[in-house]
Amino acid sequence: MTKNSEVLLASRPSGMSDLSNFSIREAKMPAPKEGEVLLKTLYLSVDPYMRGRMRDAPYFVEPFQINQPLSGGIVAEVVESKSPDLKKGDIVQGMLPWSNYSVSATKELQKVDPKLGPVSTALGVLGMPGMTAYFGLLEDGKPKKGETVVVTSAAGAVGSIVGQIAKIQGCRVVGVVGSDEKASFITKEFGFDAAINYKKPNYFEDLKKACPNGVDVFFDNVGGEISDRIFQLINEHARVVVCGQISQYNTDKPDMGPRLLWTILTKTATVKGFMVFDYSDERYNKGVLQMADWIKQGKIKYKENIISGIENAPKAFIGLFKGENIGKQLVKA
Amino acid sequence: MTKNSEVLLASRPSGMSDLSNFSIREAKMPAPKEGEVLLKTLYLSVDPYMRGRMRDAPYFVEPFQINQPLSGGIVAEVVESKSPDLKKGDIVQGMLPWSNYSVSATKELQKVDPKLGPVSTALGVLGMPGMTAYFGLLEDGKPKKGETVVVTSAAGAVGSIVGQIAKIQGCRVVGVVGSDEKASFITKEFGFDAAINYKKPNYFEDLKKACPNGVDVFFDNVGGEISDRIFQLINEHARVVVCGQISQYNTDKPDMGPRLLWTILTKTATVKGFMVFDYSDERYNKGVLQMADWIKQGKIKYKENIISGIENAPKAFIGLFKGENIGKQLVKA
Repeated sequence: MTKNSEVLLASRPSGMSDLSNFSIREAKMPAPKEGEVLLKTLYLSVDPYMRGRMRDAPYFVEPFQINQPLSGGIVAEVVESKSPDLKKGDIVQGMLPWSNYSVSATKELQKVDPKLGPVSTALGVLGMPGMTAYFGLLEDGKPKKGETVVVTSAAGAVGSIVGQIAKIQGCRVVGVVGSDEKASFITKEFGFDAAINYKKPNYFEDLKKACPNGVDVFFDNVGGEISDRIFQLINEHARVVVCGQISQYNTDKPDMGPRLLWTILTKTATVKGFMVFDYSDERYNKGVLQMADWIKQGKIKYKENIISGIENAPKAFIGLFKGENIGKQLVKA
Repeated sequence: MTKNSEVLLASRPSGMSDLSNFSIREAKMPAPKEGEVLLKTLYLSVDPYMRGRMRDAPYFVEPFQINQPLSGGIVAEVVESKSPDLKKGDIVQGMLPWSNYSVSATKELQKVDPKLGPVSTALGVLGMPGMTAYFGLLEDGKPKKGETVVVTSAAGAVGSIVGQIAKIQGCRVVGVVGSDEKASFITKEFGFDAAINYKKPNYFEDLKKACPNGVDVFFDNVGGEISDRIFQLINEHARVVVCGQISQYNTDKPDMGPRLLWTILTKTATVKGFMVFDYSDERYNKGVLQMADWIKQGKIKYKENIISGIENAPKAFIGLFKGENIGKQLVKA
């Protein structure tokens, strides 16, 4: 009999999540009804924003429930279809439960075109993180040739793509990362002009030197003290894209820092919270095609970090907050 | 002989400015050169942003210099012209020194059309504060019918106009002020739907009640704790126009508060620093004409608070930070 493991939220984390917040159980094989398909999970995406759904508090998507499966971006194969829309063997993606098998109405799924790239990229560079980088930088960051773009979490799934798109736009690109290994990787592999390791005591001096003309676009995945510092360097009419705040996800109390509104005023800066879901329309597919084309031309490189086994998804998720991964963290089911 | 008093910056204030930071002296009557005009000051504008120029630090306009005249928005009459562009008796406005008489190249001046309204309004509702309200609200705030707009410093030169323009757009408008007298004034005279006196201990409860559907547009003139609170009420896709931060102008140390980037992210809010100088192009005059039309139709009311005598300009300026004025504070020379 085929095994169907599922990963549940065992308890809500306070601070950093750990393995005790998750549990694994064997579930029955689900059966599709009319209009539905049975799906075999191929890849699970672990993403920092999921930490927000572990809180029992309003968020932009509904909270996870205790003793219920987690869910997230998943690439799956149709193994049985009771819908004319999809056939056995089709590859799809959607927001699906963390389990080996699941059923879904076909309208909740998007077909994945395997010709565009390995199907795992539908969760990375050709999926939500890639499109976050694409729309966040181009639509909200509006980088112009010759400007300086600073990206935090620059070796991550979003940041690494932001930096490369900014290079395509003709910008000077500076990445902020948490290790010398990552710093070396993003300059050598992803073509960043400079990389700053924020764990070094003098990192702010390094950052200032790396941005001799100030910062025109700040693409922020991190928040907290590093972001406070970068705000000190922004130029007049700077654009700040607030895409993630990974330093803040594991804290339950409001964090204090220097007030930013004065800086925003005197620099006539624009600070925008970004959610890729705002681009879930005809623009999305155009973005995917553009990205696939850039990859084909060698202008965009991407890196995937793949852990095997659905039971290791909690470990992969926790690792996100420890800065363990370069590029997109995935779990192969 | 005609008197020409001028107001100088005697010393840089630390914290709130007081009269000791200013001095008055008699100056020689200036003589216009070719291409210049001699101007007699009619009205001086005192504005909160001028506090920023009293610091010896980079700002969006250059700092005032010790023992040099302050300068600011002034409406003046041409008393002698050595330029074909302007003739004796013309009324102009410009950034001019705080003195009874001054000379200026005509290209630094804008002609004031007395048919549009009393010439003093060129410093208020038909000038910089009015156009700040107009462009800040309409271009950055983008209020839509039925939305809730919250304005701080709502009885002031900018806030009182913001609220009325928001009413014209069909919004629910809530003003935050510092006295019951102002609260009553903005609801009765300016047509705000509700007014909150932030000096009352329970003001935040009052504010929540006044915004049952949350806050879609927050037009901020104040900053600090009041703004922190209002951020707690913003809706998804809210727009925050950072127009002034009067609570922060008199402090030299960076002020701490709850970090806002997390809220900006989860609400996908847009926070924009606003400077009216960004609209110093063909849009500006259109704004002035629209405002003059609204005033003629009775849709916009304005209030001026006029102190006489150029030697009283420092007192009028200091009063801005004590919340003494309703509407536009002017000095009649």
